[in-house]
Amino acid sequence: MAEKKLSGAGLRGQSAGETALCTVGKSGSGLTYRGYDISELAEKVSFEEVAYLLAKGELPNKQQLEDYKKRLKSLRTLPQEVKDVLERIPKSAHPMDVMRTGCSMLGNLETEESFDEADDHIERMLATFPGIVLYWYRFTHDGVRIDTDSEEESIGAHFLRLLHDKAPSELHAAVMNTSLILYAEHEFNASTFTARVCASTLSDIHSCVTGAIGSLRGPLHGGANEAAMELIEGMKDADDAEQKLKGMLERKEKIMGFGHAIYRDFDPRNDVIKAWSKKLSEEVGDSRLYDVSVRCEKVMWDEKKLFPNADFFHASAYHYMGIPTKLFTPIFVMSRVTGWTAHVKEQRANNRIIRPSADYTGPEPRKVPAIEER
Amino acid sequence: MAEKKLSGAGLRGQSAGETALCTVGKSGSGLTYRGYDISELAEKVSFEEVAYLLAKGELPNKQQLEDYKKRLKSLRTLPQEVKDVLERIPKSAHPMDVMRTGCSMLGNLETEESFDEADDHIERMLATFPGIVLYWYRFTHDGVRIDTDSEEESIGAHFLRLLHDKAPSELHAAVMNTSLILYAEHEFNASTFTARVCASTLSDIHSCVTGAIGSLRGPLHGGANEAAMELIEGMKDADDAEQKLKGMLERKEKIMGFGHAIYRDFDPRNDVIKAWSKKLSEEVGDSRLYDVSVRCEKVMWDEKKLFPNADFFHASAYHYMGIPTKLFTPIFVMSRVTGWTAHVKEQRANNRIIRPSADYTGPEPRKVPAIEER
Repeated sequence: MAEKKLSGAGLRGQSAGETALCTVGKSGSGLTYRGYDISELAEKVSFEEVAYLLAKGELPNKQQLEDYKKRLKSLRTLPQEVKDVLERIPKSAHPMDVMRTGCSMLGNLETEESFDEADDHIERMLATFPGIVLYWYRFTHDGVRIDTDSEEESIGAHFLRLLHDKAPSELHAAVMNTSLILYAEHEFNASTFTARVCASTLSDIHSCVTGAIGSLRGPLHGGANEAAMELIEGMKDADDAEQKLKGMLERKEKIMGFGHAIYRDFDPRNDVIKAWSKKLSEEVGDSRLYDVSVRCEKVMWDEKKLFPNADFFHASAYHYMGIPTKLFTPIFVMSRVTGWTAHVKEQRANNRIIRPSADYTGPEPRKVPAIEER
Repeated sequence: MAEKKLSGAGLRGQSAGETALCTVGKSGSGLTYRGYDISELAEKVSFEEVAYLLAKGELPNKQQLEDYKKRLKSLRTLPQEVKDVLERIPKSAHPMDVMRTGCSMLGNLETEESFDEADDHIERMLATFPGIVLYWYRFTHDGVRIDTDSEEESIGAHFLRLLHDKAPSELHAAVMNTSLILYAEHEFNASTFTARVCASTLSDIHSCVTGAIGSLRGPLHGGANEAAMELIEGMKDADDAEQKLKGMLERKEKIMGFGHAIYRDFDPRNDVIKAWSKKLSEEVGDSRLYDVSVRCEKVMWDEKKLFPNADFFHASAYHYMGIPTKLFTPIFVMSRVTGWTAHVKEQRANNRIIRPSADYTGPEPRKVPAIEER
């Protein structure tokens, strides 16, 4: 039974533990990974450096980064059993279910037998996740069995290479790099908290990540960039966007990609991805989706004082790079696996099983009636 | 950032929400499911009635129970794709990883498209879980592809039938029935809380259950009955048990199957399963494991004032029925899936995304150094 009643539903604003990984919404510095501001990271480093930072505690030096990238590159091959599983998942499946199953299957073949192995498994997941979702995607949508190895140095470029069968432009590789940095870590969000609850039973790392993928799948969590895409793709131009959006607001329809559970004034990730979306629209020579997004931003602020979160301009950015909407949330997984697994390691290092209580609202004690009397 | 600091690590004693499903450790009534005492349920009803109670809110009448059991029986066939996946999981895999993957794969083939479908998927999982773990087990350990349908009426008997290739005795079917009732539900334990966190993002039911299986896998949670078996199987008789256990206590070794995070004086499930273990030992005509367990109970109480929890006498009971130790925790899944999914429905009915905060313990804000300066 509960000794203490919490005011906020959903544990909002309640501390559920400690972390050295991230601050969210602290004044003056919207989002930091291990003390580094997200805007500076997005401008100056690679996603691989961020992954290393989250896993090891510090940014790598040149040699460490070289070794790390080489190791990640060498770990991209999928076991035949995983490919066999992916080939049996229908085209109509939810891509997050595919990732959840692929990660779970990998855990059967390469089980974490000791927590000392955690870093090896983290690197393996980071290296294989683009291949897991794209092996399935290309097999079921294009009828090809792709080679999940590539010569691309970065995870972002590797993803685009497997998707499009050709080397991505420098611009696209740079956008993917930034995008993966922006999504890497975000304190005790629902999927990360799922991973920590699982870790607190001292379960293995594939269980933690499999569970986290399942939580990220939820439309209130990871699905927002896909929902934003669905919103903007039906808008012909900025004026049409304004009209449609105002209509939705009048009808009190839910509009995804705006506002945030923690941030109150702005999402520090928005400016970064918005700038990339603009550049991409110029490269493609088609500014419709960008213009539509900018107008949506203005209308939502004027009407509701709501700001775009990280997801909103991601929609147009990903679309400009030819990424199918259904793969947006799996990209989130490829990035956030770094944050999830860093939290798993942190939970293990100072663990108590996460086992809250509940307030009982059910029937009073009662006797079991004989079946004839029910 | 956190507005309120909680005293207990692991959210212990803190309310994380409401439930009408269960009370744990309330004085006068150790464990209730929807108001019914666990001892009375274990004595008077079938596991299928408990499953129905948890899913629908009330115990079924005769017609409802008949229909329900008929439906469950009709849902036992595994899709070929699930069997293909199970055949690709090695013999050495952790059976909980097998269940996690089997459940996740099922979600690809039979995705919950709307929450209205929840009950259908719950029944399907309940019906297929014995087949999922035993298809893999029998294939990898005995080299046979079993038919996962059987004529057994109850889930407990169905499990034993698939495992042993013959109809179980009445005694064994009754023990399995009781065991499944005892493990069905237990408020906001770590695996159930995992399911609720996942449900709070409005994710699908297979994601919730897949995540919960991963948490139950942890040795601090579901693995206790297996650990208890490992403890007692090395003890020659009661005196040997006493000597070994005292040695372990002196060396301050962890002894699984005793004490509980919530219960303080006794675990109300212990008396029930202990009585069945005694009956089984008489049937088999070999009381060693039972005697050893009784002596362990006495020593732990005398030395440490610790009582056996639900897991301890389950070890000998399962062993007497010829169940391999590695399948103990999967049985827990077959039962607890009823509690998990009832909690998922409850979370959905009154939802706010579960997103706590954390206390930050990491580095102060710092500038990103150039790579040459790291």
